[in-house]
Amino acid sequence: YTGAEIVRLLANHPQFRITVMTADRKAGEQFGSVFPHLITQDLPNLVAIKDADFSDVDAVFCCLPHGTTQDFRLRNINEYAEWYGHAHRAPELQEEAVYGLTEVLRDEIRNARLVANPGCYPTSIQLPLVPLIKAKLIKLSNIIIDAKSGVTGAGRGAKEANLYTEIAEGIHAYGIKGHRHVPEVEQGLSEAAESKVTISFTPNLICMKRGMQSTMFVEMAPGVTVSDLYQHLKSTYEGEEFVKLLNGSNVPHTRHVVGSNYCFMNVFEDRIPGRAIIISVIDNLVKGASGQAVQNLNLMMGLPENMGLQYQPLFP
Amino acid sequence: YTGAEIVRLLANHPQFRITVMTADRKAGEQFGSVFPHLITQDLPNLVAIKDADFSDVDAVFCCLPHGTTQDFRLRNINEYAEWYGHAHRAPELQEEAVYGLTEVLRDEIRNARLVANPGCYPTSIQLPLVPLIKAKLIKLSNIIIDAKSGVTGAGRGAKEANLYTEIAEGIHAYGIKGHRHVPEVEQGLSEAAESKVTISFTPNLICMKRGMQSTMFVEMAPGVTVSDLYQHLKSTYEGEEFVKLLNGSNVPHTRHVVGSNYCFMNVFEDRIPGRAIIISVIDNLVKGASGQAVQNLNLMMGLPENMGLQYQPLFP
Amino acid sequence: YTGAEIVRLLANHPQFRITVMTADRKAGEQFGSVFPHLITQDLPNLVAIKDADFSDVDAVFCCLPHGTTQDFRLRNINEYAEWYGHAHRAPELQEEAVYGLTEVLRDEIRNARLVANPGCYPTSIQLPLVPLIKAKLIKLSNIIIDAKSGVTGAGRGAKEANLYTEIAEGIHAYGIKGHRHVPEVEQGLSEAAESKVTISFTPNLICMKRGMQSTMFVEMAPGVTVSDLYQHLKSTYEGEEFVKLLNGSNVPHTRHVVGSNYCFMNVFEDRIPGRAIIISVIDNLVKGASGQAVQNLNLMMGLPENMGLQYQPLFP
Amino acid sequence: YTGAEIVRLLANHPQFRITVMTADRKAGEQFGSVFPHLITQDLPNLVAIKDADFSDVDAVFCCLPHGTTQDFRLRNINEYAEWYGHAHRAPELQEEAVYGLTEVLRDEIRNARLVANPGCYPTSIQLPLVPLIKAKLIKLSNIIIDAKSGVTGAGRGAKEANLYTEIAEGIHAYGIKGHRHVPEVEQGLSEAAESKVTISFTPNLICMKRGMQSTMFVEMAPGVTVSDLYQHLKSTYEGEEFVKLLNGSNVPHTRHVVGSNYCFMNVFEDRIPGRAIIISVIDNLVKGASGQAVQNLNLMMGLPENMGLQYQPLFP
Repeated sequence: YTGAEIVRLLANHPQFRITVMTADRKAGEQFGSVFPHLITQDLPNLVAIKDADFSDVDAVFCCLPHGTTQDFRLRNINEYAEWYGHAHRAPELQEEAVYGLTEVLRDEIRNARLVANPGCYPTSIQLPLVPLIKAKLIKLSNIIIDAKSGVTGAGRGAKEANLYTEIAEGIHAYGIKGHRHVPEVEQGLSEAAESKVTISFTPNLICMKRGMQSTMFVEMAPGVTVSDLYQHLKSTYEGEEFVKLLNGSNVPHTRHVVGSNYCFMNVFEDRIPGRAIIISVIDNLVKGASGQAVQNLNLMMGLPENMGLQYQPLFP
Repeated sequence: YTGAEIVRLLANHPQFRITVMTADRKAGEQFGSVFPHLITQDLPNLVAIKDADFSDVDAVFCCLPHGTTQDFRLRNINEYAEWYGHAHRAPELQEEAVYGLTEVLRDEIRNARLVANPGCYPTSIQLPLVPLIKAKLIKLSNIIIDAKSGVTGAGRGAKEANLYTEIAEGIHAYGIKGHRHVPEVEQGLSEAAESKVTISFTPNLICMKRGMQSTMFVEMAPGVTVSDLYQHLKSTYEGEEFVKLLNGSNVPHTRHVVGSNYCFMNVFEDRIPGRAIIISVIDNLVKGASGQAVQNLNLMMGLPENMGLQYQPLFP
Repeated sequence: YTGAEIVRLLANHPQFRITVMTADRKAGEQFGSVFPHLITQDLPNLVAIKDADFSDVDAVFCCLPHGTTQDFRLRNINEYAEWYGHAHRAPELQEEAVYGLTEVLRDEIRNARLVANPGCYPTSIQLPLVPLIKAKLIKLSNIIIDAKSGVTGAGRGAKEANLYTEIAEGIHAYGIKGHRHVPEVEQGLSEAAESKVTISFTPNLICMKRGMQSTMFVEMAPGVTVSDLYQHLKSTYEGEEFVKLLNGSNVPHTRHVVGSNYCFMNVFEDRIPGRAIIISVIDNLVKGASGQAVQNLNLMMGLPENMGLQYQPLFP
Repeated sequence: YTGAEIVRLLANHPQFRITVMTADRKAGEQFGSVFPHLITQDLPNLVAIKDADFSDVDAVFCCLPHGTTQDFRLRNINEYAEWYGHAHRAPELQEEAVYGLTEVLRDEIRNARLVANPGCYPTSIQLPLVPLIKAKLIKLSNIIIDAKSGVTGAGRGAKEANLYTEIAEGIHAYGIKGHRHVPEVEQGLSEAAESKVTISFTPNLICMKRGMQSTMFVEMAPGVTVSDLYQHLKSTYEGEEFVKLLNGSNVPHTRHVVGSNYCFMNVFEDRIPGRAIIISVIDNLVKGASGQAVQNLNLMMGLPENMGLQYQPLFP
């Protein structure tokens, strides 16, 4: 789905044009027969990677499962091996790769040759938490995250567990303790903290196609108030086009960002003194995947960061 | 919802800018507090109609319930009174109004001052049937239509029948015989036929937000084949950007047009000799409402018809 | 899913007890690990058919794909071969089998040894049409059926087309002309008519788990009125527990029968004179599969027909 | 919806019969016209409370909004006034009322005349936490709860926020800090702890009709392990029909209890040492409302506690 989403986003991009599209099982087919919602687009046919002509290509989006391309998000080769179950096959590229959390690492991305696009959960979690940790406004212990994802996050693989009949009208947690986005989040938070951070992370799969909500339960540093958290996030993201801190007590809804590259967030008081609740929402396929990837490529190409990305959310 | 959809579509329109927004109950509020998915847009506050300054306004989209503004779709004043339950209050404007089925009445729309934007069901039905009737390829008797609509068609009014709990995971027919779109469809088909056409029309409400599928069961004129219908629709819509006849036996899915201004259609053989089945799908809020309205205003303003409308469908 | 539904229904059946459960890939597993919603039931473990001990078994429900067990619904061996793509392997049993449309063939079922349980579409279509055809109230030509099914009808096989992401929030037609339930319906209607009936049948898959709506567009025999159809169905099903003709202009909703063995139906006037619209709804997994099967077994065993089946619909 | 659910559950209850049904706006109507899924039930017409004949009534289920009947869950009259916004009008009954958390307070309920049926969130939270707190296995500080509810919890009132179009395909938090179930949960946990407990509670509304998941993040007492929590819950609920601790690492799914009176729960290790994650699921309308009410009335009447409640979950 992230590949199809790149195509959707590039359909109106004034500077990027798709010249090669590769596929594995579906090599030889027309893209419109695989994704009929894009039949109106004038696209090259799908070819096997070995048959692709890269001579006219300036940039490549890799939307392949980890293991097929390597994942370049984790800096620590050993951690990669532990979480992905095999040794990294391109460790030198791993070292070169820049982590593509745009609003946090904009300058590095601008000068990068290889960008590792963040995962959806890590994007929704790090955007609020990294600045708060850097400013030492929240404690590093007991960061508890309950996150909810739409089903597109699981891809288009034909699995019984992801059938309509198994998913509709329900919610369940999965991958408690063991989700692969955990080391990616901990890496980002640890760098911000300059010390090792261990998180509690419970992802849930809910009956929606797109959308992600991360709810973060944190302890504030001594003397810090919810208003301090709010003000710091406000000043951090003031000029940003795609990250929005909501006003007052407005609660972020996943349905208010679907189809767009926005991240909406807000901070709330907890009943337990000294604690705060932070909620962020994104479209997992856009800001959590293909949209952020286009945003990063814009930066790498010296284009305006929002080029081709000004889609408003599709509500209702 | 059609008003919010106009705002979404105009967000990226290079030539149109929103200068006045009116409201009734919500006058005085910010648009983003009524529709939080559009908080990022720089919009004027909502004002009561009586307080609106129209001095700087070149065009108006009316998205009000019938009765508040008049509906200008029905040419026959008496028919209006019969179906809408009150006399038309602007009969002279009624006469001037052009029916905005873009692909069918493009030239008239280009020169119109007042366009009556078609209903969603009528759009999805007339786009395939009008050309077939004009070419005398189908019989006028026994045109049977089973149509299915998403719930946005019912608007945002707080009604028990439209609660999530009453709608999710189900389908039901409604307004059999009595739906207000019937006279509009019959008017269009009768004009194409140059004789009175009476249709069988059964709308269904299904558990989706956006999308509309119309299934039309027709008898072909003597000697006509399904291939004749297909070829005629193909040549009719060959150069059109927004109306697409699918290849081969591909079936139109509502989800493949959601968020876009496209109408996808196809023609199928029936088991009963001499009959054909035609299926068309649109997004009821876009091609069935706000998208077609923008398309028409582009025409009226002498702009490229597709300006600001090149959104690809949001799938999944 | 029909197998699991049998287990659900038998959980409270006072006379039937499950002693053997067979499986193919999942042989050796506990039923509760395959269907966790039934972990509270005290059930035998799944065994391969070859290892099953049938010595203590009085009756068998076969919920296997056609081809694995044979399908016994079609009386004509040649028609079976044509629609199922292979010769029938138990033609002598085929001749013995009784078609299990309970309310229509109750006496035959009571004395049967082998009952072929009707398909879901055929159940929802034949319950209203068979009595009307027998009474010669509707014409046999141009019976047009637009039917909508929930996704459980497609079973639990892991197919891309049935993923949540591909199904949610949409509708599409499928199997136009070629659905395997067509010969079954035509067989039933032809027997009622005592002459060959050919139907127009367009099934649609909609984004709901359970539920089926069949909309039937018919021409009435000369002089017959909608009220005649209504009265005939009323008297036909007056004493029936599971088939209900709604009052007045009440429209059957799929969600009002989900989880139950009911079929709700009603008859409506069409705008085209001489025509009528009939709508019926069932839960495809209950009256359209496992519920009707239990109803039939009750009959075969000389028990009250409704035993263990008095579940009220689960709404909302 | 809780009233209709009582009717559904009592439809097969061997000992209870409905003799009076009251309504406010809908007095005078047939129940089946208000809830068409129950048209097959032989029920008394709805009457206004003032016209009801209670002479033949042994027990009453009150399913009215708080304020109409009083809510008897909070023992502290002042707390009631604070959370419900008005003084309690029947303080002497308040004192008499027994809190109906069946598995925890079975003996008290058996002898009660007036039972205050627990809220849905409080049921799903207290069933796992009360025994763990009583056994001093978890710390009382920093009990963090992220709960997700289906939309039936909001009732059948016609509110814009609960329209299908506003709810489908999304999730949002609501009532952070201020949900009325908070004092009820804190009352139950404080009694178990014999000291004041303050919780962090974030409810979320998700796009499903029925179902509730509560995720509880807790710190274990020194030296306690996840296995200790598991074993204690196992022995606590060993003989219970309606509360089930899942095996191994099986995750409770809301869809596996829908339509039934079950509560499924399990305990998981957290990545942060010393912490545990507890997940419980119920059907908010059954165990979270009407089912538990019937369970309690069975107890009060000296009947088997599970009478009429052995519905298996409706999956899928």
